[in-house]
Amino acid sequence: MNIILLNDNDFITADSAVIHNQSTIVHLKTVLNVHHGDFIKLGKLGGNMGHGRIVHMDENQVILSEITLTKSPPCKLNLVVVLALPRPKVLRRLVMDMTAAGVRHMVFINSYRTDKSYWSSPLLSRLDEFVIEGLQQGIDTITPQITLAKRFKPFVQDDLPSLIGDGGAIVAHPYAEEHFGKLTQNQLPQVLVVGAEGGFIPYEIQLLDSVGVQAASLGKRILRTEAAVNALLGRWL
Amino acid sequence: MNIILLNDNDFITADSAVIHNQSTIVHLKTVLNVHHGDFIKLGKLGGNMGHGRIVHMDENQVILSEITLTKSPPCKLNLVVVLALPRPKVLRRLVMDMTAAGVRHMVFINSYRTDKSYWSSPLLSRLDEFVIEGLQQGIDTITPQITLAKRFKPFVQDDLPSLIGDGGAIVAHPYAEEHFGKLTQNQLPQVLVVGAEGGFIPYEIQLLDSVGVQAASLGKRILRTEAAVNALLGRWL
Repeated sequence: MNIILLNDNDFITADSAVIHNQSTIVHLKTVLNVHHGDFIKLGKLGGNMGHGRIVHMDENQVILSEITLTKSPPCKLNLVVVLALPRPKVLRRLVMDMTAAGVRHMVFINSYRTDKSYWSSPLLSRLDEFVIEGLQQGIDTITPQITLAKRFKPFVQDDLPSLIGDGGAIVAHPYAEEHFGKLTQNQLPQVLVVGAEGGFIPYEIQLLDSVGVQAASLGKRILRTEAAVNALLGRWL
Repeated sequence: MNIILLNDNDFITADSAVIHNQSTIVHLKTVLNVHHGDFIKLGKLGGNMGHGRIVHMDENQVILSEITLTKSPPCKLNLVVVLALPRPKVLRRLVMDMTAAGVRHMVFINSYRTDKSYWSSPLLSRLDEFVIEGLQQGIDTITPQITLAKRFKPFVQDDLPSLIGDGGAIVAHPYAEEHFGKLTQNQLPQVLVVGAEGGFIPYEIQLLDSVGVQAASLGKRILRTEAAVNALLGRWL
């Protein structure tokens, strides 16, 4: 955690708050190794960032005073990532990483190679939690938008065009002739589509193409979804 | 696994082989879903790539014949990654990802913020296994070089300069004024140095600078080591 996020309920007065979250308390003690009297970096979820002083700390709560939050959170990337729903254990890290990197909207879609069981994973009900982890990692306070689109074709035909607007869209596809690395910073699209392990099938690539999503490759080497998404995001940072 | 790697011991004749590796057999059956008679992608560790036909398949072995290996493995990236030894569970994925991406040499170093216990992790004796996983992911047969450099200062002063040569070196440092994104494809260095969670301390940044390693930032957002390495590698792909 590179910043601790507080929500409305944590505030006692305008400049004091109490943290009850156990994992935050453990992190403050064992990783950040902070003590009574120290200032720590704070942010208000959906609001500004700044710092506050620890005035009490035990196993159940940390009390903060002298909270000053005057710094605006960083801008989001002008980027919507549309991603075939990944394996549950990868989902958590991907939501964290995309949030930390500043993706403004993530859409999880179904695809031919998406295992159907992924849609009933209990982790799907914990996305808010992974977003908070990502914000605390990336030093931000503004939650990205998350959409679950369980039906591929209606999403691509009815919803994707308005997300693309005139910002352009690319689908990462290992077998495409266009190479992603050739795009200049100004040519980076507003929508990035990434498939499941194994990629999209030709029908899906064609359907995406029919609404203006161009296929581009990251080279012949095939990366894990998680590595590929981060390798692609690097271009926007 | 996007390619199955065989080593010398797996070959029965020049064009037939037997796979005993349990996880490979399970992967063939349950993920790749291949059957008797199917051709699968094969490579010889350290050699060429091609394919072979499954002529027998049970729970203990898969026998391959008609093996033809005529395609050269892809070129490695002209890149040495020097990385503060990460948490053991992240180490596996990072070795896999760097291998899959084609990093030709990875050096794991100690740093002030590297937890000393990481150096006694049993996973350090399994690096070869993670490399094979990475090669099978990235479709390659050539193992990268891996160096463990447990002492930071001697490594930086005595060994790093020859790794850099005249190829340039950059250390990813969130607080640097130079921005990594400004480098053109031709300016990408030959050596990339990445710190532990929390980054390098000023002394370490200065010591790196003294041998010509320039600090550059990926932006104000702080990424997990694993996400940061992949985001950086994306520029080389």
